[in-house]
Amino acid sequence: MKSVLVLGSGGVGAVTALALQSSGEADVTLIVRTDYETVMTRGYEFKSVDYGQVDGWRPSRVVKSVDEAVEHGPYDYIVVCTKFVPEVQKTEDMVRPFMHKGATVVLVQNGLGNEEPVMKAFPDGYVLGGVSMIGSTNYDGRINHISPDEVTIGTYDKRPEAIASAKEYVRLYSLSKSKGIFTEHLAKKRWIKLFYNATYNTIAAVTGLDTGRLYFSGISNNLVKEAMAEVRAIAEKELGEKLDPGIEAFMLNVDANEYYEPSMLVDVRKGQPMELEAILGNPLRLAQKHNIPAPLLQVVYIMLRGRQMALLEKRGLVDLPPLGFDLKEHKPVYDTLPWTE
Amino acid sequence: MKSVLVLGSGGVGAVTALALQSSGEADVTLIVRTDYETVMTRGYEFKSVDYGQVDGWRPSRVVKSVDEAVEHGPYDYIVVCTKFVPEVQKTEDMVRPFMHKGATVVLVQNGLGNEEPVMKAFPDGYVLGGVSMIGSTNYDGRINHISPDEVTIGTYDKRPEAIASAKEYVRLYSLSKSKGIFTEHLAKKRWIKLFYNATYNTIAAVTGLDTGRLYFSGISNNLVKEAMAEVRAIAEKELGEKLDPGIEAFMLNVDANEYYEPSMLVDVRKGQPMELEAILGNPLRLAQKHNIPAPLLQVVYIMLRGRQMALLEKRGLVDLPPLGFDLKEHKPVYDTLPWTE
Repeated sequence: MKSVLVLGSGGVGAVTALALQSSGEADVTLIVRTDYETVMTRGYEFKSVDYGQVDGWRPSRVVKSVDEAVEHGPYDYIVVCTKFVPEVQKTEDMVRPFMHKGATVVLVQNGLGNEEPVMKAFPDGYVLGGVSMIGSTNYDGRINHISPDEVTIGTYDKRPEAIASAKEYVRLYSLSKSKGIFTEHLAKKRWIKLFYNATYNTIAAVTGLDTGRLYFSGISNNLVKEAMAEVRAIAEKELGEKLDPGIEAFMLNVDANEYYEPSMLVDVRKGQPMELEAILGNPLRLAQKHNIPAPLLQVVYIMLRGRQMALLEKRGLVDLPPLGFDLKEHKPVYDTLPWTE
Repeated sequence: MKSVLVLGSGGVGAVTALALQSSGEADVTLIVRTDYETVMTRGYEFKSVDYGQVDGWRPSRVVKSVDEAVEHGPYDYIVVCTKFVPEVQKTEDMVRPFMHKGATVVLVQNGLGNEEPVMKAFPDGYVLGGVSMIGSTNYDGRINHISPDEVTIGTYDKRPEAIASAKEYVRLYSLSKSKGIFTEHLAKKRWIKLFYNATYNTIAAVTGLDTGRLYFSGISNNLVKEAMAEVRAIAEKELGEKLDPGIEAFMLNVDANEYYEPSMLVDVRKGQPMELEAILGNPLRLAQKHNIPAPLLQVVYIMLRGRQMALLEKRGLVDLPPLGFDLKEHKPVYDTLPWTE
């Protein structure tokens, strides 16, 4: 029996907890904040393409806080399904209370650069990266899960114990209805998802348009396509290999029959911080490192940094000077490009 | 006595009507749509830096519709103080019912390219351009007018009668408390205002940030400044002369102590169409004509065309295909760059 902690109880976290608990070989503790009372009273309700209708479900243990989760540790796997927004909370700080020699942290998150700081803070343990393909939302403890759950797991760390831990996680994850896949090419998987996330997702957030409207306005076949070419150039240099030439056409048309709101557009509309650094900041830092020009992504990024500032301000995380100041006397929040910081 | 029609009864239109009526030499008819009942019942209330507190004010005639205004014509001056959004209504169509030989149309509007179509549709009359410097808002017939009214008037048409008509308008406009200025360099005046409008205004609309937040985030000294350099290159080529080197520094700092929402950001927030073609589309067409690169403004423009599409959609002016379509089968709203149309 493995002891597993899941952090993040959104659409991905809830299905992850269900998948692991359903394996029969894992004892799952889930940290639930917003929905705690609801989940304790009536449990989760799943309407799931993989698991069917599941009512009143709870994993082995539902806790409300990190402190409470620590009491019930230690955990073999600490699975992070939260958004990755280091401006709000760094992942290494989030998992630090659960770190112990031999434990494994699994980062089921978007973007690039998520693993490194955790690996650095946690040299005695193992850090896995997960790329999730799932359509799953959680509103008030009701999970609507519409596309099959498939998570691809790999490591940047090539120690045999890390790889063994990844394979064991994949085995556990696949014992019931979800699908886990082990990959030796985690970075490549992450980059392929970025063809969509660094372009459609970011341009949707800047323009305020969902994917159908981006398509219909002509922006898809114009800016989004150009941005994808920049992603390809960075990815191929960073990975040291050519990628499938069909990725752009696939990604450009993947939402060509719906008005879909990518996650960063949802964040803008809800006024909550975006996963900007993982999705765009870190790929651009690699472009800079390799001296690959990415002028379009750079403009999009600078604009979204400004918007992120306003989203962080709403959360009380950025203080703007009051009226009647002279802004010229103030150091801007971002006075340099990120790669020169 | 001159017979004057004012179209547009926002902050600019109301002060324009007041200035002309106060001249004592003009009989002003104002078309009022939204506020008609209010204006007929209690008149306008001005709190004006130039005119002081003025309550219960009406010009000689307030009418509700174009048809009613036509009945009371003909007019010597037809003064257009509406926003310039040709996607919604072309100015030449707006003024056509009032056109007659020898009449003068005065376009007190933002941007570039407003005069040409009216001149073409109206060869027997005169078309003046006006660049307004004013801080004036109209909410429910209450006008808050905070910065002195100054309108600079000129012509593209060099016929002596057109110039005489412009000078006469300036004289009339200056008889009370407002200031009219005649210029032989209308295009230059329009371009100088575009240093702000084509950059701050458009980037505010794209990013969703007011000027203080653009400044404080660092975007002002980065993207806005770069965009101003593009405006300068186009302007100097088009005008055939060098412009004052201090314009950028002045415009960058003009709002450095306030959180000001430029008009296009207000439009986005209110869900109403923006003056995109006058402010950015037409300057970019000139860039193309002169073969001046403007890559940053072009990206901003493409993004804002997408957003404009969504704003026009809200007004019922663009029909998107319903769910369950295949967007690949549809011709996009904008499938080419504007200068190749």
